[in-house]
Amino acid sequence: MGRDVRELLEGVASGAVSVDDAEIELRAKPLKDIGYANIDLDRQARQGVSEVIYGEGKTAEQIAGIVRTLEDHGQPRVLITRLASDKADEVAGSGVAVAYDPLSRTGVVGGVPEPDAPGYVLVATAGTSDMPVAEEAAITVEMLGCRVVRAYDIGVAGLHRTLARVDDILGASAIVAVAGMEGALASVIGGMANCPVIAVPTSVGYGASFDGLAALLAMLNSCAAGVTVVNIDNGFGAGYAAAKIVRA
Amino acid sequence: MGRDVRELLEGVASGAVSVDDAEIELRAKPLKDIGYANIDLDRQARQGVSEVIYGEGKTAEQIAGIVRTLEDHGQPRVLITRLASDKADEVAGSGVAVAYDPLSRTGVVGGVPEPDAPGYVLVATAGTSDMPVAEEAAITVEMLGCRVVRAYDIGVAGLHRTLARVDDILGASAIVAVAGMEGALASVIGGMANCPVIAVPTSVGYGASFDGLAALLAMLNSCAAGVTVVNIDNGFGAGYAAAKIVRA
Amino acid sequence: MGRDVRELLEGVASGAVSVDDAEIELRAKPLKDIGYANIDLDRQARQGVSEVIYGEGKTAEQIAGIVRTLEDHGQPRVLITRLASDKADEVAGSGVAVAYDPLSRTGVVGGVPEPDAPGYVLVATAGTSDMPVAEEAAITVEMLGCRVVRAYDIGVAGLHRTLARVDDILGASAIVAVAGMEGALASVIGGMANCPVIAVPTSVGYGASFDGLAALLAMLNSCAAGVTVVNIDNGFGAGYAAAKIVRA
Amino acid sequence: MGRDVRELLEGVASGAVSVDDAEIELRAKPLKDIGYANIDLDRQARQGVSEVIYGEGKTAEQIAGIVRTLEDHGQPRVLITRLASDKADEVAGSGVAVAYDPLSRTGVVGGVPEPDAPGYVLVATAGTSDMPVAEEAAITVEMLGCRVVRAYDIGVAGLHRTLARVDDILGASAIVAVAGMEGALASVIGGMANCPVIAVPTSVGYGASFDGLAALLAMLNSCAAGVTVVNIDNGFGAGYAAAKIVRA
Amino acid sequence: MGRDVRELLEGVASGAVSVDDAEIELRAKPLKDIGYANIDLDRQARQGVSEVIYGEGKTAEQIAGIVRTLEDHGQPRVLITRLASDKADEVAGSGVAVAYDPLSRTGVVGGVPEPDAPGYVLVATAGTSDMPVAEEAAITVEMLGCRVVRAYDIGVAGLHRTLARVDDILGASAIVAVAGMEGALASVIGGMANCPVIAVPTSVGYGASFDGLAALLAMLNSCAAGVTVVNIDNGFGAGYAAAKIVRA
Amino acid sequence: MGRDVRELLEGVASGAVSVDDAEIELRAKPLKDIGYANIDLDRQARQGVSEVIYGEGKTAEQIAGIVRTLEDHGQPRVLITRLASDKADEVAGSGVAVAYDPLSRTGVVGGVPEPDAPGYVLVATAGTSDMPVAEEAAITVEMLGCRVVRAYDIGVAGLHRTLARVDDILGASAIVAVAGMEGALASVIGGMANCPVIAVPTSVGYGASFDGLAALLAMLNSCAAGVTVVNIDNGFGAGYAAAKIVRA
Amino acid sequence: MGRDVRELLEGVASGAVSVDDAEIELRAKPLKDIGYANIDLDRQARQGVSEVIYGEGKTAEQIAGIVRTLEDHGQPRVLITRLASDKADEVAGSGVAVAYDPLSRTGVVGGVPEPDAPGYVLVATAGTSDMPVAEEAAITVEMLGCRVVRAYDIGVAGLHRTLARVDDILGASAIVAVAGMEGALASVIGGMANCPVIAVPTSVGYGASFDGLAALLAMLNSCAAGVTVVNIDNGFGAGYAAAKIVRA
Amino acid sequence: MGRDVRELLEGVASGAVSVDDAEIELRAKPLKDIGYANIDLDRQARQGVSEVIYGEGKTAEQIAGIVRTLEDHGQPRVLITRLASDKADEVAGSGVAVAYDPLSRTGVVGGVPEPDAPGYVLVATAGTSDMPVAEEAAITVEMLGCRVVRAYDIGVAGLHRTLARVDDILGASAIVAVAGMEGALASVIGGMANCPVIAVPTSVGYGASFDGLAALLAMLNSCAAGVTVVNIDNGFGAGYAAAKIVRA
Repeated sequence: MGRDVRELLEGVASGAVSVDDAEIELRAKPLKDIGYANIDLDRQARQGVSEVIYGEGKTAEQIAGIVRTLEDHGQPRVLITRLASDKADEVAGSGVAVAYDPLSRTGVVGGVPEPDAPGYVLVATAGTSDMPVAEEAAITVEMLGCRVVRAYDIGVAGLHRTLARVDDILGASAIVAVAGMEGALASVIGGMANCPVIAVPTSVGYGASFDGLAALLAMLNSCAAGVTVVNIDNGFGAGYAAAKIVRA
Repeated sequence: MGRDVRELLEGVASGAVSVDDAEIELRAKPLKDIGYANIDLDRQARQGVSEVIYGEGKTAEQIAGIVRTLEDHGQPRVLITRLASDKADEVAGSGVAVAYDPLSRTGVVGGVPEPDAPGYVLVATAGTSDMPVAEEAAITVEMLGCRVVRAYDIGVAGLHRTLARVDDILGASAIVAVAGMEGALASVIGGMANCPVIAVPTSVGYGASFDGLAALLAMLNSCAAGVTVVNIDNGFGAGYAAAKIVRA
Repeated sequence: MGRDVRELLEGVASGAVSVDDAEIELRAKPLKDIGYANIDLDRQARQGVSEVIYGEGKTAEQIAGIVRTLEDHGQPRVLITRLASDKADEVAGSGVAVAYDPLSRTGVVGGVPEPDAPGYVLVATAGTSDMPVAEEAAITVEMLGCRVVRAYDIGVAGLHRTLARVDDILGASAIVAVAGMEGALASVIGGMANCPVIAVPTSVGYGASFDGLAALLAMLNSCAAGVTVVNIDNGFGAGYAAAKIVRA
Repeated sequence: MGRDVRELLEGVASGAVSVDDAEIELRAKPLKDIGYANIDLDRQARQGVSEVIYGEGKTAEQIAGIVRTLEDHGQPRVLITRLASDKADEVAGSGVAVAYDPLSRTGVVGGVPEPDAPGYVLVATAGTSDMPVAEEAAITVEMLGCRVVRAYDIGVAGLHRTLARVDDILGASAIVAVAGMEGALASVIGGMANCPVIAVPTSVGYGASFDGLAALLAMLNSCAAGVTVVNIDNGFGAGYAAAKIVRA
Repeated sequence: MGRDVRELLEGVASGAVSVDDAEIELRAKPLKDIGYANIDLDRQARQGVSEVIYGEGKTAEQIAGIVRTLEDHGQPRVLITRLASDKADEVAGSGVAVAYDPLSRTGVVGGVPEPDAPGYVLVATAGTSDMPVAEEAAITVEMLGCRVVRAYDIGVAGLHRTLARVDDILGASAIVAVAGMEGALASVIGGMANCPVIAVPTSVGYGASFDGLAALLAMLNSCAAGVTVVNIDNGFGAGYAAAKIVRA
Repeated sequence: MGRDVRELLEGVASGAVSVDDAEIELRAKPLKDIGYANIDLDRQARQGVSEVIYGEGKTAEQIAGIVRTLEDHGQPRVLITRLASDKADEVAGSGVAVAYDPLSRTGVVGGVPEPDAPGYVLVATAGTSDMPVAEEAAITVEMLGCRVVRAYDIGVAGLHRTLARVDDILGASAIVAVAGMEGALASVIGGMANCPVIAVPTSVGYGASFDGLAALLAMLNSCAAGVTVVNIDNGFGAGYAAAKIVRA
Repeated sequence: MGRDVRELLEGVASGAVSVDDAEIELRAKPLKDIGYANIDLDRQARQGVSEVIYGEGKTAEQIAGIVRTLEDHGQPRVLITRLASDKADEVAGSGVAVAYDPLSRTGVVGGVPEPDAPGYVLVATAGTSDMPVAEEAAITVEMLGCRVVRAYDIGVAGLHRTLARVDDILGASAIVAVAGMEGALASVIGGMANCPVIAVPTSVGYGASFDGLAALLAMLNSCAAGVTVVNIDNGFGAGYAAAKIVRA
Repeated sequence: MGRDVRELLEGVASGAVSVDDAEIELRAKPLKDIGYANIDLDRQARQGVSEVIYGEGKTAEQIAGIVRTLEDHGQPRVLITRLASDKADEVAGSGVAVAYDPLSRTGVVGGVPEPDAPGYVLVATAGTSDMPVAEEAAITVEMLGCRVVRAYDIGVAGLHRTLARVDDILGASAIVAVAGMEGALASVIGGMANCPVIAVPTSVGYGASFDGLAALLAMLNSCAAGVTVVNIDNGFGAGYAAAKIVRA
């Protein structure tokens, strides 16, 4: 954004841009207002990634409308997260070519790109039930052009399961550690890994897991240095951060 | 308690005990009321262990009074927990032969007995700061006649530290796993051990550890089957339970 | 696990095992990866009990697959917990001989073994509504070869109900005390019993019970020494721990 | 208050009271504004008890001023709660004849009255550390003209201690049950008593007692019908309610 | 209970009761075990009120069974609380003559008795939505033989609504103040009333009411002396306590 | 209310009003009791706005009854909030001319008035999902005769979206800032605006948003001076307060 | 800020301002960086009020430095909040003419201005202990040129105290209602007042007041429409908002 | 760690290492047990950074001992965090050449290295009071060989302060965003930045900030994609993660 300020001011100084136009452009340029949403058409330029649509709380019609606006402005690929199965059908029914994955509840328009970044992101889970969140992370990483290695069901109560994947842990450029219940996987991986580790607490568990709070608190208090944490069940956020690290 | 009911009733039936005496004895016998406390003189018989004095919130004078009452009734050893250093001095000053340990903040009257139970209790900690709680557990175990093996500072963020003690873990009759912060030690030990594991969350940590809540929740949600948990910083309770298991 | 390390190293030293094979075996041996799960085939040897399947969040197909893998590797009995009634029908429909108990929501494959351990585990509840959790505990104890005595609906607000079972309390090798609401049963039993007491808070209650939090906190703060606690509604965990104690 | 409305209106109707005077009196009569406090001079008439001064957050000077205002308006006895020891000295130093009790941290002006109500209030505690709160309740009851019977240190982990006082429990007109930690005393007494039971959670405990929250929640969830609860450490409130019940 | 101890002991002493019989009777007498419940047949004698059945978590069949057992032992009236509408139909269908009230979700067997206690209990609510909880309290009071006066929708945000009922407030023997949201009604009534006030927080509200927590905390912190509190939505408990006060 | 006290007293003094009538009128006048509700017919005179019906927890019949009572007493417009779609149909079916808006879940009887207050209230949201709450606020503002400008989906993670509406922010007489998740919109707008800003946290989000708690806490801690906050999802309250400010 | 954007752009277009200068000015103009703080010199122009210094966490030296910088840039009056007594002495000792008020813990440089706004802000408290917070609000209001009327110790448990001030409530342009414990004052005043009411929860109380949380929740759930809330003990924020309303 | 397993096994296979030695080395090699701590001498090799000493809860003597052990094993630089001022004096007094920084409460042995990584880490704070946490992060980054740019007191309530640093934000390789109160800085920076953003909530604030909980929750719910979070006040963890990202 800062970069545009100067460019615009130079246009005004040279007479190429009027004051009125400059002010309007300064404020409205990267936005496309389609009534129910202010679509950010400039994000790919600004942040290196295309717009991602958070599907929850949007109608199929709204999602389709945003996808079309993005396509009209030259964005080849769109990721839709937290997309319910029936809503995905509606979006597809309205003519948008969306590929839907029921496990991660994501939709992809324009296909998953070939990886163009070095290394890989390891996405690990403590248990089988953590897989939907892990897959949301994995698909996000892949949509941002990075390679993913999966290591599922390697929770620390069966430590040999964790140790069996030690080479994958040591070779990764970034790790997304997904776990519910007591979330100890993040600390064990965090202590072994050479790369940044992003912990994702999940709402897997019952009783005093308090819908993921136990895992969240445990991960925030990890005794392994440098583990960072995202919101409960936020596979997208972790995948996004991991891809940013790999691409940096 | 149930056992005494029958005995007393038989006394009444045989005429050896009057109704009035029976009722009084039924209710008051195992108690010695010394004004500020109802001392349980029967616990050693009933539960196999002597009375333990919780020192917090009692004056040195009260503690000394309870010790003397116990001694007068033939209890050779007394353990005092949560005993502040200056209060211990006062108790000693009043003529009670108390041996004070500043790390665990415990006082022992009558000495620590020789172990007379088979096997050992492993008391493990994640970090150095967990040692005061661990020592409270260890001394409790020893006062109850069991042997203790200590494994301190073996937290899972440096997993080789935990693995280095695997033989001690596999050989124990009961394990007390003491950890603050994210409390992951309990899950890793719980997954390896063959014996009952009692987890003690500690208030070690800051911020979102919420004075031990993070570790407590993590331990309650441990994915390792059969781990049980006591209150935050409750080394005494864990040691007591471990000794009960070993002696069982 | 530690024990295998040495055995394997001796094989390498003697030439009986190659370095490559040793490394692979060291990491992967006790695991059977069937895609959606890392099955622990070594647990019976390592911890003396067979694998237990946590049914929640697994499909009937996945559960059946894990059971078959365990059977193929010689595990005669399998316990499935938190198994919904309709999922149990599906598992049975796919050819797995599972006996389903709707009250405890458990499935048993291979039958409940004859008790081969001395003594008994007393499973007590405060109220009738605590019975599903208590039965999960009881079946877990029985699957691990121990005998169970049940004492249901003996909550302390009708103290004579508790006292009526005092002999069962005094004779037990381990006690599982199950209670919702204010969870006081654990303290009263804990004060009477000679054996380890494991408290299970349940989500029975409303309002300020906060889905079992009130009972959980009460049990963690029990004034009866040596009471340990498991997660809310975690009958399995309590039963597992109790059986471990009895078998120790 | 409602009663005065009519009386005043009749005065206006009869001409005995002018409209202006009526309005002023209607609003200000029972109040004496001394700058830092609106003293309620009418409470004794309205609610049958004299004003009680909550000492916390008031200076010794302010407390003395309020006492003198009350005395000037004919109130023979005043109770001051939550009065720190040094502040009590200051109040006494300023010429107010206050009798201070350090255990309950209360001050009494004008002496404790002779009981003039039938029956007694039983004030019971689970432990010795609950005594300060219990004494605040007891003195409040006595200041309101009722008799108190004390039963301290009768917590349910030593059930024979509770049962030893069963006659006192059965004979009471109202019971104040004071307990920290898991607060189970309220449920056990509530199940035995014939009279209203008011439970006072105390902040006695540590860790997951969360400064009395565990006891508070337990008491609110008591399975004994008809137990009511006051704020943590609120001995005054419980005593006040108990006396109101006895006097009703 | 305590009274029976002596009586029984005298029987033993006189030879009228054998030791074996005494012990059995001492423990089991007031209980009727019908498999799924320990029914307390002695409560009417012991506490002056008949057994109340908490309907939640019990099947229609179990409820009908308990009612019949009580009837067989001469209890003329039974109150069933938290009884769902369809379950009430089932209970009635099994031949139990239950009168069901859908607003309070209570069922009454044997009819509501004529009031035989002096005075009345005022049951007040802040809003219309608090009525189900208030009616549960009112019916409980009536079942215990006391008269009820209702004052609904008199919340303090329209203070004239509260003041309009001041005579009812001043004349009551006990008051049940029912309110959700911020629960201020308890403080305003508590400040005006001459009698004990029992506050019932309700789960009425949204957002930061946290299902009644806001009202619960407010009521526990009421600045009106002597207000006591029961669990969220616990109309039964409040009514039970109020009737106990009136009958005392 | 205070104003009427004097008027009434003058009537009594002059003989125009009898004491009995005065007392009745003093208490009951502005209320119309229709069984299930105390309708406040005087609010328009007293507070300048008509009664608003909170639809949740009231039957369609009750709502229709209250509307008719208000119409009978000369109130031309009524706003019904939190009105479910099917209940709105029932209300309309019973003959009440209600205009229903499904987005804000509000019903309007008597039409929205023409704005008669100067300036405008800016209603802003962080995201599209916050729109239902924002519209409840907007309609409330309009029903109270003020003009609304809407600025939706201008969350601060795309700061240019916020800045694009800076003129609307600077020109407003009051601002309602509606946001879920981290609620940062309130702080950014609060730092720019010249007028009072009312923040509305919404329950939009998941995981550690804890149903709006995260946004609520963030807004209460806003570093922008003078931001005030209402309950989670309380669009009505914010709109009401904003209109009060504009009309002041 | 928006206003300056246009002005600056016009300068650039006219050649009066160079592009480089414009960019620098655009970003840095209203800020004075003095090492430890970015002082906002433009706030008086932008928001109509002078900078307020939050004294907590700043050294006396830093506070004095900020005051001097503001004075150097022509700001005649400065308010310092949360200023400890000894720090105020230090600030004064360094030559800054600060008038300190120990009750509200505020310092004023340049004196309190004469009121130049119509009407008054009523600042009311439930109890005497709420006065420090109330005085912080009052002084903030006065520093912003508005008149204050104080009504202290008028809590609703003595409702006549509240009613005695009804004329002050009805005449106010804005009300700041300050209360700890159960915070009911806000609802009662909110129901009577014609103007906006800002509620300030205070940390006055103990036990389940949880340092003001009970009052905060109660106020957020106020059944009086249009009450808005600020952070616990945030007298400054409430006064600031109230003054903004009065000046609007 | 995995890498050493193979190397060691090859040694055993070749006869260069005996089985006994291999097992011991496998477990104990990277550890130096000095009684009170298991020092990790291998971390620099394993994770590329030297051991960091968490000073809280360790005595000066213990800290000095660990530093000397590290120095003896060739680690040139040591960082000590959370080091109290007086303890730092003691450490220095015992002959360890520690450079102490009171603001960040860190000690550095062996000096801060010259940066040898490309780019820079931007460390930003919302306010002046967040500086201690920010400096802990900054020194950690520098100790790991990376360059730091500081941007302090740029909170979003004065948005021009944030915008003034937009070039620093856009040019960074990683950003540490430090904020207390409502923590909105993370979202605004997260929306502008091209690089990974690590948010650090601080305990700066009062009342409903709940010692940093408000900022923590806000940051976890940030609407800016890819923001990750560390524990409250955990400057070290954020700096460590940022440096790992830059060095990756």
